[in-house]
Amino acid sequence: MVGVKQKEVRIGMIGYQFMGKMHSHAYRDLPFFFDTEARPVLQAVAGRNEAAVKQAAEKMGWASYETDWRRLIERDDIDVIDIVTPNHTHADMAIAAAEAGKHIIIEKPLALTVEQAERMAEAVKRNNVVHMICHNYRFAPAVQYAKKLIQDGVLGRLYHFRGNYLQDFIIDPAFPLVWRLKKEVSGSGALGDIAAHSIDLARFLVGDIHEVVGTMETFIKKRPIGEMVGGLSAKVDSDQMGEVTVDDAVAFLARFENGTVATFEATRFAAGNRNKNTFEINGEKGSIRWDMENMNNLEVYLTEDAPGLQGFRLINCTEDIHPYAGAYWPPGHIIGYEHTFIHLIYEFMKGVTSGESPRPNFEDGVKNQKILAAVETSAQTKQWVTIDY
Amino acid sequence: MVGVKQKEVRIGMIGYQFMGKMHSHAYRDLPFFFDTEARPVLQAVAGRNEAAVKQAAEKMGWASYETDWRRLIERDDIDVIDIVTPNHTHADMAIAAAEAGKHIIIEKPLALTVEQAERMAEAVKRNNVVHMICHNYRFAPAVQYAKKLIQDGVLGRLYHFRGNYLQDFIIDPAFPLVWRLKKEVSGSGALGDIAAHSIDLARFLVGDIHEVVGTMETFIKKRPIGEMVGGLSAKVDSDQMGEVTVDDAVAFLARFENGTVATFEATRFAAGNRNKNTFEINGEKGSIRWDMENMNNLEVYLTEDAPGLQGFRLINCTEDIHPYAGAYWPPGHIIGYEHTFIHLIYEFMKGVTSGESPRPNFEDGVKNQKILAAVETSAQTKQWVTIDY
Amino acid sequence: MVGVKQKEVRIGMIGYQFMGKMHSHAYRDLPFFFDTEARPVLQAVAGRNEAAVKQAAEKMGWASYETDWRRLIERDDIDVIDIVTPNHTHADMAIAAAEAGKHIIIEKPLALTVEQAERMAEAVKRNNVVHMICHNYRFAPAVQYAKKLIQDGVLGRLYHFRGNYLQDFIIDPAFPLVWRLKKEVSGSGALGDIAAHSIDLARFLVGDIHEVVGTMETFIKKRPIGEMVGGLSAKVDSDQMGEVTVDDAVAFLARFENGTVATFEATRFAAGNRNKNTFEINGEKGSIRWDMENMNNLEVYLTEDAPGLQGFRLINCTEDIHPYAGAYWPPGHIIGYEHTFIHLIYEFMKGVTSGESPRPNFEDGVKNQKILAAVETSAQTKQWVTIDY
Amino acid sequence: MVGVKQKEVRIGMIGYQFMGKMHSHAYRDLPFFFDTEARPVLQAVAGRNEAAVKQAAEKMGWASYETDWRRLIERDDIDVIDIVTPNHTHADMAIAAAEAGKHIIIEKPLALTVEQAERMAEAVKRNNVVHMICHNYRFAPAVQYAKKLIQDGVLGRLYHFRGNYLQDFIIDPAFPLVWRLKKEVSGSGALGDIAAHSIDLARFLVGDIHEVVGTMETFIKKRPIGEMVGGLSAKVDSDQMGEVTVDDAVAFLARFENGTVATFEATRFAAGNRNKNTFEINGEKGSIRWDMENMNNLEVYLTEDAPGLQGFRLINCTEDIHPYAGAYWPPGHIIGYEHTFIHLIYEFMKGVTSGESPRPNFEDGVKNQKILAAVETSAQTKQWVTIDY
Repeated sequence: MVGVKQKEVRIGMIGYQFMGKMHSHAYRDLPFFFDTEARPVLQAVAGRNEAAVKQAAEKMGWASYETDWRRLIERDDIDVIDIVTPNHTHADMAIAAAEAGKHIIIEKPLALTVEQAERMAEAVKRNNVVHMICHNYRFAPAVQYAKKLIQDGVLGRLYHFRGNYLQDFIIDPAFPLVWRLKKEVSGSGALGDIAAHSIDLARFLVGDIHEVVGTMETFIKKRPIGEMVGGLSAKVDSDQMGEVTVDDAVAFLARFENGTVATFEATRFAAGNRNKNTFEINGEKGSIRWDMENMNNLEVYLTEDAPGLQGFRLINCTEDIHPYAGAYWPPGHIIGYEHTFIHLIYEFMKGVTSGESPRPNFEDGVKNQKILAAVETSAQTKQWVTIDY
Repeated sequence: MVGVKQKEVRIGMIGYQFMGKMHSHAYRDLPFFFDTEARPVLQAVAGRNEAAVKQAAEKMGWASYETDWRRLIERDDIDVIDIVTPNHTHADMAIAAAEAGKHIIIEKPLALTVEQAERMAEAVKRNNVVHMICHNYRFAPAVQYAKKLIQDGVLGRLYHFRGNYLQDFIIDPAFPLVWRLKKEVSGSGALGDIAAHSIDLARFLVGDIHEVVGTMETFIKKRPIGEMVGGLSAKVDSDQMGEVTVDDAVAFLARFENGTVATFEATRFAAGNRNKNTFEINGEKGSIRWDMENMNNLEVYLTEDAPGLQGFRLINCTEDIHPYAGAYWPPGHIIGYEHTFIHLIYEFMKGVTSGESPRPNFEDGVKNQKILAAVETSAQTKQWVTIDY
Repeated sequence: MVGVKQKEVRIGMIGYQFMGKMHSHAYRDLPFFFDTEARPVLQAVAGRNEAAVKQAAEKMGWASYETDWRRLIERDDIDVIDIVTPNHTHADMAIAAAEAGKHIIIEKPLALTVEQAERMAEAVKRNNVVHMICHNYRFAPAVQYAKKLIQDGVLGRLYHFRGNYLQDFIIDPAFPLVWRLKKEVSGSGALGDIAAHSIDLARFLVGDIHEVVGTMETFIKKRPIGEMVGGLSAKVDSDQMGEVTVDDAVAFLARFENGTVATFEATRFAAGNRNKNTFEINGEKGSIRWDMENMNNLEVYLTEDAPGLQGFRLINCTEDIHPYAGAYWPPGHIIGYEHTFIHLIYEFMKGVTSGESPRPNFEDGVKNQKILAAVETSAQTKQWVTIDY
Repeated sequence: MVGVKQKEVRIGMIGYQFMGKMHSHAYRDLPFFFDTEARPVLQAVAGRNEAAVKQAAEKMGWASYETDWRRLIERDDIDVIDIVTPNHTHADMAIAAAEAGKHIIIEKPLALTVEQAERMAEAVKRNNVVHMICHNYRFAPAVQYAKKLIQDGVLGRLYHFRGNYLQDFIIDPAFPLVWRLKKEVSGSGALGDIAAHSIDLARFLVGDIHEVVGTMETFIKKRPIGEMVGGLSAKVDSDQMGEVTVDDAVAFLARFENGTVATFEATRFAAGNRNKNTFEINGEKGSIRWDMENMNNLEVYLTEDAPGLQGFRLINCTEDIHPYAGAYWPPGHIIGYEHTFIHLIYEFMKGVTSGESPRPNFEDGVKNQKILAAVETSAQTKQWVTIDY
């Protein structure tokens, strides 16, 4: 019989839908692929519907469950609170968890408002707990490698960032009015849900954003009442119609503190684009392109390549040299979306061990939230808005 | 011996560089591929440098040359004036040509300013001559087919237009200060040179633009003095430096009169993108994508495709059903950049015969110029600007 | 606390390198994503090196280990023997496992020779155990969906199969002489290792192969002595050189029983192709293409598409309608190489429950082996060889 | 008025369909883009149908026409005979032209049989005329650049050539029985029509082929009687059916004299592949890939690229450094299929001036024909056939 010597980190997760499934899987898979000092234990999961949370716990391997998230936070046998609930619950939960001395990992966006986000950041700081926000796309090997190239100066001075996040899952007007389409629950639509990811990628790769001007649009203004049923699917509950109170699409221009000029676009109305999270960065010495739908690939162009041989290289980032990729399979044997979360959890576990909150953390979340807010303000005032960090 | 029955249309072209070569070629190739009532005759070309214009005339097949463009316009044996000179000369030449009763075809952008553009449009109207502006990209078979799909309602209501025109030919700071980088000669930089093309594609495919907000940037502010040497190459003439007075890059958001939301970006600082003129349009029933670097292809997604079989189709627009393509070779045998000009000239020749100015004409040029001006204004005021048609 | 009601199936695995890691992971992940009556339990793993097997057991979650595979087979608490050792060990292990009444899952190719393979197939049949061979690529959602399209007649009569499996991991002459390059251990080189996969895909999608003619080549005839160190990496152990006794590359033509004409090529000398396992099938009503390096995508062309709109569709097979894909994430959120093994194990667990050996099983393995042997024979005789089933 | 100083080379062309149109265009366009000592003059075109040949002459710019090809060859005012007629006429025409002391340019394949081809080669040699065969694909800038890379040793020793030429223009069983499907007129089907091109590319890029083994197939054995109507279209003339006497598809393996292993496939039954003429070459230091449908692009992989940055580069071969490309437009402004013929004619005109027959010439045509014959023989004997040069 074999034994285990790692330190156990006991996780308590609030919520168990799409991201709950994703996080659960990442906790389970982490020790298989990576060596970490701290090993996550799926201690307890919380949800209001007892039958549902019980079934989720069984299916996903949680040792126990709670029907009241406050009870979960109170438990002594929990080291980390993982928050995967709709956005309007984030602030209360995170602050309560911080006050209880739990480390916190939370889904994006951090909160509904900058004010909430700042209170949350203040709470984790005051209570000295480790905190992280789940912008998972940073953790694709290709994106990490892009970061390395930029840091090493391979692209030189950066001129452009072009970040698009295109989806189409609500393009059908019969798609119901779920929580993601209600401002009081989600804060915003495409903006907070997916543009927030592009913003995080931009901040990670390029730096801080100085100012923005944007526009938002709700193409379908009324929808039948309904609810999410896992992933990004939903069902209609009623023949009643309700008002969509968030943006279906958002586009904005930005200028970074380092002078980079950027365009951002996020929409759920781009037919045929299921999860088209892409960026291109142009620098004085080269360019890079990435597309989540082929997330293992990175396209790199280098101006210093020999004349005649200049062209974008299609790099399959599955070599040992590409961050995290060495933990898996031989070159050319690709990984998928879920692995970005394994890497994120890997960094979080390292943070729990070291006591240092890994990036992106709540401070990143606050900055991201400020940009989201600035975009919304600019969409209303029709003017550029400077971000006040 | 064989004979020719077509009506001859005698062309007088002012200028003979990049676009002069392109137009000359199109006039020569047109009758080979297309049947037109009017057949262009390369009657005379004008340029200030006699040795150079003489050599160009010989090489490109012009029957004669002039060293003064005003003399060309005065000639009785000229039916059409084709203007391919730098932008600051457009207004005087076009107005003089119109006053002389010549039909006019002109390179884009129409002028340096809206005021000039309007005077030009007024002149052609007053003199009742046929007029056209050379937004050649409209005339790629794939783009024409995209237009047909949109007109036929295949995409339904349009939600998004995303138009990028990325180049890199001036990314090297040693690239000299040529006329294209001087505001007094070119009017603007990436904006008027390439964003103007994206705007034309957007107007052609989607409709009129209602308002814009944009930003412009000049990354390299000083360059050595020099000049163009054909195509998009240049040579340094001096060790003196001069100031770049136009934009290296521009990005803007737009809203169309029909509610479509758009992003535009044009830059000459996107390393590795030689002539990346692309657009994507998302509608309620489908999407299309196009990329000039693979200009024969059109990507089309249709939401009505059977579940499981939904995906972007990569259509090689070289079938008889694709506009203009039937004039050439069997399916799969591609055409190139120069053919877009043959199609444009084809439409112009039809216009000369019928007396109706084909689209895009000077009225389109004025509207385009107004959008360029609005983008510039918005970049200065940092506010949205409504286009006043 | 939550409980588990599934029937447990206790696995004993022989070997723990590349494929051992892969299978271990699949057993662990299976119950998270899929509901199965039988739940695999990682009971014991066997290997000769005690320190190494102990460490592997700990890392990968096996409850115990053995240093003698015969001892593993004897254990009463083992229901399934999983064989992931080099090919020359397959026959003895599988036959012993079958005699002991264990169900068997085995890595490909089935054996070194047809004679061995037939004895193995006879043993599992005589002992009435469930058996399966690990041609995992069948189990990519895109491939399964391709199968469905073909079965439903969407492509009509099939004309062509074009299967290439290109790798480059031994292209460096300094890559050592590992077991994969010794005929007495591996049976053959690119042929049995990767062409065997293409053959399985062809048999799955098109049907039985009637005859073949092929050629084999060993480009680098001597290499330094060394060994594999996980995945497809290796290290040199000695400055001594040894002879490569297998093929570096193989190419063959084939004719199927249904008249389809095929070309196959497998090589480890295709620079830049890390794991380029591709096929294209052309039928009277359409074509499909697949590429393992972008394994979520399937390209489909349908001749019945409307004129003008004909083109290969790039289908991201991540929808619920695509086999297995519904178990994971929303459309556009891709999965990777390892998931093909989860699906394979899923089918195996269903087989263990039902008592029916899932495809591909040992009978498929025998047929595959006969084709491998026929290719080798034809390479020697320089004539076509008919497969004798 | 401007003058012309070039030496005139008076062309007499026999035939005026698909390739006649193509050659006519190339002669016309050549002097516009390239400086040549010799300038082609479209002196006369010959065809049996007077009305049709007269119309073709007018449309394509030929100064005169003949209805008897023998009369064309006799004319004193003809320097070059260009043969673009069906294959069964090639031998008589070429030999007569050679005897008359005319330089000869001819469409591929050279002849129906090796015996014919050898007589033709003997005739041009004996009469000391310049000769060339129209394997135009060699002359794509990307292919020429590939050749340069190989010659410069950039790929090192070559391991693999993989040449596919896939079309679908006769996949519909209702496509009629045209001359291309009758052995007595065309010699063979996909083999001589398109595999011949792949063979030429292989010979150009890799070297001489030593031996082959192949298989041929006619999927649709009877078709309605009909004829070509330009390009690759056709019309049915009768409700009578006739027998297809050539191959619909061919596949063969080959070994080059330098040890390179190759696979070839050519078919007109690959649905969705309009003109998919592709090759991949794998060498010890890198790989290249090319696809005619995106003919401006060349994919290049170099093993010496830095770890992490290894991947196929997508090179748009439109820079001055890429052969012929400098004659056209700025980088990124693509050319098409027809330009490959302009380059071929350019080389032919240089040959007429210098007196040296450019490659590929009749000697290449004979070698190509021997390979075609060897493939046919091997398809019958089911054995490898060594080419006897």
